[in-house]
Amino acid sequence: MALRARALYDFRSENPGEISLREHEVLSLCSEQDIEGWLEGVNSRGDRGLFPASYVQVLRAPAAEPPPARYANVPAGGFDPLPPPAAFKPAAPEPFAPPAAGCPFPPAPYGGSYQPSQGSDDDWDDDWDDSSTVADEPGALGSSYPDYEAAGGGAASGRYRLSTRSELSLGSRGGGGHLPGHPHPPGGSAAKSSATVSRNLNRFSTFVKSGGEAFVLGEASGFVKDGDKLCVVLGPRGPEWQENPYPFQCSIEDPTKQTKFKGMKSYIAYKLVPSHTGQQVHRRYKHFDWLYGRLAEKFPVISVPHLPEKQATGRFEEDFISKRRKGLAWWMDHMCSHPVLAQCDAFQHFLTCPSTDEKAWKQGKRKAEKDEMVGANFFLTISVPAGPGAGLDLQEVESQVDGFKAFTKKMDESALQLNHTANEFARKQVTGFKKEYQKVGHSFKCLSQAFELDQQAFSAGLNQAIAFTGEAYDAIGDLFADQPRQDLDPVMDLLALYQGHLANFPDIIHVQKGALTKVKESKRHVEEGKMELQKAEGIQERCNIISFATLAEINHFHKIRVRDFKSQMQHFLQQQILFFQKVTQKLEEALHKYDSV
Amino acid sequence: MALRARALYDFRSENPGEISLREHEVLSLCSEQDIEGWLEGVNSRGDRGLFPASYVQVLRAPAAEPPPARYANVPAGGFDPLPPPAAFKPAAPEPFAPPAAGCPFPPAPYGGSYQPSQGSDDDWDDDWDDSSTVADEPGALGSSYPDYEAAGGGAASGRYRLSTRSELSLGSRGGGGHLPGHPHPPGGSAAKSSATVSRNLNRFSTFVKSGGEAFVLGEASGFVKDGDKLCVVLGPRGPEWQENPYPFQCSIEDPTKQTKFKGMKSYIAYKLVPSHTGQQVHRRYKHFDWLYGRLAEKFPVISVPHLPEKQATGRFEEDFISKRRKGLAWWMDHMCSHPVLAQCDAFQHFLTCPSTDEKAWKQGKRKAEKDEMVGANFFLTISVPAGPGAGLDLQEVESQVDGFKAFTKKMDESALQLNHTANEFARKQVTGFKKEYQKVGHSFKCLSQAFELDQQAFSAGLNQAIAFTGEAYDAIGDLFADQPRQDLDPVMDLLALYQGHLANFPDIIHVQKGALTKVKESKRHVEEGKMELQKAEGIQERCNIISFATLAEINHFHKIRVRDFKSQMQHFLQQQILFFQKVTQKLEEALHKYDSV
Repeated sequence: MALRARALYDFRSENPGEISLREHEVLSLCSEQDIEGWLEGVNSRGDRGLFPASYVQVLRAPAAEPPPARYANVPAGGFDPLPPPAAFKPAAPEPFAPPAAGCPFPPAPYGGSYQPSQGSDDDWDDDWDDSSTVADEPGALGSSYPDYEAAGGGAASGRYRLSTRSELSLGSRGGGGHLPGHPHPPGGSAAKSSATVSRNLNRFSTFVKSGGEAFVLGEASGFVKDGDKLCVVLGPRGPEWQENPYPFQCSIEDPTKQTKFKGMKSYIAYKLVPSHTGQQVHRRYKHFDWLYGRLAEKFPVISVPHLPEKQATGRFEEDFISKRRKGLAWWMDHMCSHPVLAQCDAFQHFLTCPSTDEKAWKQGKRKAEKDEMVGANFFLTISVPAGPGAGLDLQEVESQVDGFKAFTKKMDESALQLNHTANEFARKQVTGFKKEYQKVGHSFKCLSQAFELDQQAFSAGLNQAIAFTGEAYDAIGDLFADQPRQDLDPVMDLLALYQGHLANFPDIIHVQKGALTKVKESKRHVEEGKMELQKAEGIQERCNIISFATLAEINHFHKIRVRDFKSQMQHFLQQQILFFQKVTQKLEEALHKYDSV
Repeated sequence: MALRARALYDFRSENPGEISLREHEVLSLCSEQDIEGWLEGVNSRGDRGLFPASYVQVLRAPAAEPPPARYANVPAGGFDPLPPPAAFKPAAPEPFAPPAAGCPFPPAPYGGSYQPSQGSDDDWDDDWDDSSTVADEPGALGSSYPDYEAAGGGAASGRYRLSTRSELSLGSRGGGGHLPGHPHPPGGSAAKSSATVSRNLNRFSTFVKSGGEAFVLGEASGFVKDGDKLCVVLGPRGPEWQENPYPFQCSIEDPTKQTKFKGMKSYIAYKLVPSHTGQQVHRRYKHFDWLYGRLAEKFPVISVPHLPEKQATGRFEEDFISKRRKGLAWWMDHMCSHPVLAQCDAFQHFLTCPSTDEKAWKQGKRKAEKDEMVGANFFLTISVPAGPGAGLDLQEVESQVDGFKAFTKKMDESALQLNHTANEFARKQVTGFKKEYQKVGHSFKCLSQAFELDQQAFSAGLNQAIAFTGEAYDAIGDLFADQPRQDLDPVMDLLALYQGHLANFPDIIHVQKGALTKVKESKRHVEEGKMELQKAEGIQERCNIISFATLAEINHFHKIRVRDFKSQMQHFLQQQILFFQKVTQKLEEALHKYDSV
């Protein structure tokens, strides 16, 4: 049958390859399958090209097929699969709001942020040309990634504009730097845990959502394979994650623009070379994001590093690509440095699955999405020091965690301030400092030009020396403008990564605190005769596991923090020294020009 | 008789030693003799102290004595002494305007700027306690210096505020950086030359005022002593002033605050040590200013360096004193470097007369003021290369002078721009640059404070290193703020001096052009039979002298310009290099703190 669609709104083509639509106009579709939210078709004027899928309503009979099982990977331990949310009915969508006129990116259908998409293969069809039946569902197609690399950030392109508190809060866990339409909304997990037996009144509490409560109450159960087992050991500074016996690193290089869909849509692929395989793989930002989503769901008390921020405009610009590559490299460094994250199956799949083997990728991806050891069950995989006296002192833990909480608050404040200062300092160097030095350079050049009118042969040397001095100051202005890239940008990259971690910790602390509260409650209940001692001991034992894991995570954070800030401060100072040496050298060159005057 | 005065305005005491006055109040005067515009007396409340002389009217019978001969030093050569201007009648003054409320300095009596005072000893009485009868004249006493170091400049105290064209024009010749009440108004010389026979319609033309016209027309005459003779010789680059056979320098050091009038009034004296005598003398700014006035009057085609600007407020502040000392040192350097100025009697008197020998000073001062070899007569003292072919080619001279005129215009523009840039650059370093580096320092310190909450002994070294880095950036901010004093201030001092020279040259060029025009006129007149050939030849001969002198002055200007700008650019760059090396050193110290972390 000829595929047709009716335009729901006017759309004005703004880029090559796009076609304009008029409201109510009927179009022929080349394919029903959208690519990142775009469809290809022919409009009533005979123009062929792309337009936003959400701007049109596909004209055909309602699908008879049942919706796919979208929560197939919900862990079995106490979670009843929910019926698919209403938004997933396969009928053509009612867009939630008329799109802004001339908006180059289609609005996210279904109000985006309440649409969980983890585990739904259809999001990936545009990449792997998957021909699953799910992909034939209109409206739902590509719905969670349409404005993926497209949306976010807003107008100003990143660097040296002011960061505000609200921008940073976008980077907090859960919402996690993710915009409407993103696959990791907090509502998603909340819906999952609503089926658990729980005594916590707040259904949206992280303690509940993370599975921490379910675990403490002994409701998590599952078979822990050997490969899934994690150890917390007692190190000199307290509980620590057992070191990765096979540590590795992974480089991220050569971001290259790749095209698809007859060259009309492009994306950037990064070359990853993990040191333990030496085999390069190519990954897109969306692959990183998929992985991030899986890990954030799986590990309730591990701070999964946030990905570098998204950006709407200029995402193919060299600066942005280079900045994102650096951000991803930082992210990768933190992933590889974390004993638990580094060894996690999903991450290993991401690092090692050959880019060309689509089948293997999909298998690994499905496996990760079906992983049962997530949330509450994750805690089952943790083994902690056992035996008499190995249990942690509750008050001691509470004091340590409280201390860490105060620390993170202060560090967050100072990181915010340093980030703001660095951003402003960079901006001043790129604008004001450069301008001031170049104005000095210009004035010297003008003076030398004036002096050239002096008709005095004996002063020609001086005139040239002054002109050279002018050029030196001009060059110094350029050095100032180039410098932030060398020193302040890496500092800000580091701060961004740590701001992500700091945004993760309140939830981690919340889980640990929730567990502690349960222990206290259970003790009271035992005293009041409302609970069996054995049950209360079980709660305390499981809380002990959460405490061990939390302290191990805190220790890991301090370890990498000291490592990172030391090396970054050194790098910053080295670059600053190099910079001032370059400036000095320019001035010395200029000074020597006067020797022969 | 008891001296009394009536207050003309309210005056509010604002400083120790001053007393308040109420309008119409009658006061007893301790002395009729004012000190820099202040009188001492007892008010109706019995308070004894100082108040502005111009705020009161002395109550007594009008003076019967005739006014002193104020123009005794007007050269005899064709200048008829004028009657003293009306403003000099000894009656009590009608102040020109009510003073601003609470103004700490009395307004200049007599509207100041139209009151020539050269050659009037009474201006000096406050310094040498001269008891001449003139000094007993009320109202006129100290009238030309009352707001001497007090007035000028306005509110902002000099450095790093924006220079404007109008400020700079204050520094032009004649008006010469002098404020109302100053002894060198252009009107003074104009009045003098009004008695000369002249064909120039513009009575205020510099050519006329300088005496250039009178000389060219052969109206100057006088006996030239051997010691007064000046030679222009032909050097490799054209006419040059004959070198000073006994070159010397003179240091200006140790500005010290000295007091008088029972310690209630203070002034700054500078220690001068000329290298050719090795004898130190002390001079006040007003002595420099007196000398400047004499020289500017005496030498029509020599660019007498301008004195550093006056300043109303904060004239005892260290910064101002230090800045003025440097400005006077620059001025002194240019004086000593100039073959004619350096050897001039008035300057030698200024340099060598012992500060303690008041009589000798007064003698030399009177002699200088009675010097007949000023203006038109000055040209009589110049001898130029003689003999066949030694005369300058008129067209050649005209072209050279035109070229120099274009040069000065361009140099003036670029000096103005460089001065503006340097001022702004200095201001930015003192404010913005300092602030930016210190904000970075503060942010690092905050980060280290946050890190100190980490409860981790192993990171104490890092925390200290980051705190040290914060201090280093704080110190770098201070270095930036201190730096302009080392490098940009001297550049601006030099520019100010040259801007003074550049403001002098239009008048010098005007005199030379006026002479050339007279030659052309006389040639035409000869052709038309309206003038005798001999007279025209005389005019051409005298014009030749002016041209030689002008070209010698231009050559001297270029010579010292190249010398000064070379050394100043070298100094500037050396200081900048030192500065950046200091910054680098601070950063290296900070970097090393991380070695042991």
